[in-house]
Order: sequence, then C-alpha cells, then structure tokens
Amino acid sequence: MHLSSQLLESAVKEFSRLPGIGKKTALRLVLHLLRQENSDVQQFSDTISRMKTEIKFCKTCFNISDHELCAICSNTGRKKEMICVVENIRDVIAIESTDQYNGTYHVLGGIISPLDGIGPDQLTIDALVSRVALEKSKEIVFALNPTIQGDTTIYYIRKKLNDQTIRFTTIARGISFGGELEYADEMTLAKSIRNRLPVDSYIQ
Amino acid sequence: MHLSSQLLESAVKEFSRLPGIGKKTALRLVLHLLRQENSDVQQFSDTISRMKTEIKFCKTCFNISDHELCAICSNTGRKKEMICVVENIRDVIAIESTDQYNGTYHVLGGIISPLDGIGPDQLTIDALVSRVALEKSKEIVFALNPTIQGDTTIYYIRKKLNDQTIRFTTIARGISFGGELEYADEMTLAKSIRNRLPVDSYIQ
Repeated sequence: MHLSSQLLESAVKEFSRLPGIGKKTALRLVLHLLRQENSDVQQFSDTISRMKTEIKFCKTCFNISDHELCAICSNTGRKKEMICVVENIRDVIAIESTDQYNGTYHVLGGIISPLDGIGPDQLTIDALVSRVALEKSKEIVFALNPTIQGDTTIYYIRKKLNDQTIRFTTIARGISFGGELEYADEMTLAKSIRNRLPVDSYIQ
Repeated sequence: MHLSSQLLESAVKEFSRLPGIGKKTALRLVLHLLRQENSDVQQFSDTISRMKTEIKFCKTCFNISDHELCAICSNTGRKKEMICVVENIRDVIAIESTDQYNGTYHVLGGIISPLDGIGPDQLTIDALVSRVALEKSKEIVFALNPTIQGDTTIYYIRKKLNDQTIRFTTIARGISFGGELEYADEMTLAKSIRNRLPVDSYIQ
C-alpha cells in the first residue's frame, strides 16, 4: 500500500500489528480517527498508554487490577473460602458477567501444555497452593476450557493439593469438548457454574 | 461486561468506539496490548497521537500529507496536466497501488448527495475549478464510485468546467454498478484506469 504520508503509514502499521487487523482495516480505523476531534484522539492515545503503565496484577489472584488487591479479592462480600481457577483474565470477565459466582478467583496465566512448552512452573500454581493453605479454602472450582490440556492442569493441581481437605469441583460440561470458554453464551456459562460437579466424578 | 479494573474498562471503551469493533474484540485488542512491552505500547499511543496532530492536507489536491504539498503534487515526475478526481483519500491509496497512473489527484472530500445533505459547496469543487484554470490542465479523469451520486457529481463538475478545453474521462466501468471503489481488486482497478473513457460517451 502506497501512502502519501509517513505519519499515516506509521499509524496504519501500528494498528495492523494488532491481532485480526489487516492493512485495509487498519487504514479504515486510522482514517476514522483522523476524522475525530483532536481531543478525542488524544484521549484514545492517553487511555491506552495509561492502561499499560498503571495497570497492576492482583498479588493474591493475579487478576488485572488498579491496586495491589483486585476489586474481587478486596470485596468483603465475596466468599474467600471458594477459589475459581481460570486460565486467563478473559475467563474471569466471562464468569463475572454471569452474576452466578460469589467466590474469588485464581488466574493461572495459561494451562499446562507440554507441546507449547508450558509447564507448571510457568503458571501461578505454586502461589495457588500456598494460598489454599493460608486461606483455609473449602472449595476449588475449576473453570478451565474442556480440553486435554485443561484436564491435565486440573489433574496436576488436584495432586498438588491432595493433602488438603478441600472439595474440588469443575463447572458443568455444558460446553462442548474442544470449545472455547470465552465464547460460550452467558446462559450456558451460568448453568455450568450452578451445576458444577465434583472433579472425581469425571477424572479418574 | 464487568471488568475488575477501571483502566482496562476505559481502554476497552476507547477501542469499541472504533468502527466495526465491538466490546469483545476491543477486549482482545486491549489484552493483546497489555501483553506487549511497555515501549511498544507507548509507541502505538504516540504514533496515533502524532498522526492526528501533525498530519496536514495538501493545499493543492487535499490529499493527506506530511507537508504543505503532498508527495504526489511535489513529485516533478508526475504529469501536472492530468487530474484524477476522487471522492476520498482511500481512493487515492487504491489507485496508487495499481502503479498505472502518473498524473495528480483532486480529493473532493465526498460526492454530491442531496439525501445526505451534501451539496457542491461542502466539497472541494471550487478549488478544482480554480486549479484547472491555473494549471492549464489537459485531462480530468473521474474515478468516482459508479453510483447515481457519483454520476451527478461528474455531471456537475463537467458543467462547471464547460468553458475549458479539457478532455474529460472516467475510469472504465469494469466495476459493477453500485460497487465500492476501494474494495475492487488491483487488477480490475488497473484495467479501469488504462481503459478510461470519454465522459460524453456514457453521460448525456
């Protein structure tokens, strides 16, 4: 694509680095911004920059947060003895949207996947184990994508916490095997949380 | 969507203001940026902000430019006596990509469309008329979308320049009626430029 302006070209390049955005879409977005007020574009640019520099990760659950503790961990109304283990932040957002869960979370930062070179040490599993001991947790709800890797991760964590007297559950398999959690509709996800099952009932 | 961070929420809001980007896509883009290096995100934000504040419009052809005159108007290798009239900047980019045109451009900033409240006065038609007289142009190539509005605009400009001895042409109608110029493939567009027709041959 030949552009008559270096400034325009750089802006298009930056946008087309984002996932799922090609050159033509990037150009549309940039030309859209170009038609907006200066102050609006400044706000766009400042918000992105602030978000990146100021955002923190909750020191307890590794969720995204504006403070040391995230809004969920610091909420006294939430059941601290119940921890929902998820792969990433998008899953927290998806489950929160259902308004069906009142415990806390633990964001693993991924799942065990030897083929992708992701082992337990790269995830926040050790932090989860210490947390469970410290907080005297009563139930761990696994809300991982229903895949081989998800099941492996459940199995691994389950073994690590074998000496604790905790109830292990997993969200109901309303989501089809191989599906992606974050794309499930809210109703399915809400049901899956309500009908959660003991882990031992489906993983031997 | 409930987000645990105000900063994240604002960033998602800013992205979802862009055309064709919903909340879920915005969240994906923001979380992608969050995984990048600080310096990369800073560069993204700075580039957008600079583009908006520093970009100019060429005082001759109204194309986007980094200077008073755009790279095309200031290029001595381009034929100044030939002006290609287009609706917007995206069309300039599309035609430039074909490498088939070596004249200059004139960006109207829209087309005459009474239903949308766009009359000739909101476009750069007066500037085009003065320019044609000043530059002693020999040919005007209309490269407007093949729609009723496009034809009306051609007709209007044609009348305005009736006293000038210029050749009026239009890109060949290889593009189906009602189609959008910017989505045409480069080959079709390249052919349309090569096989351009005298305006009088199809508009009476």
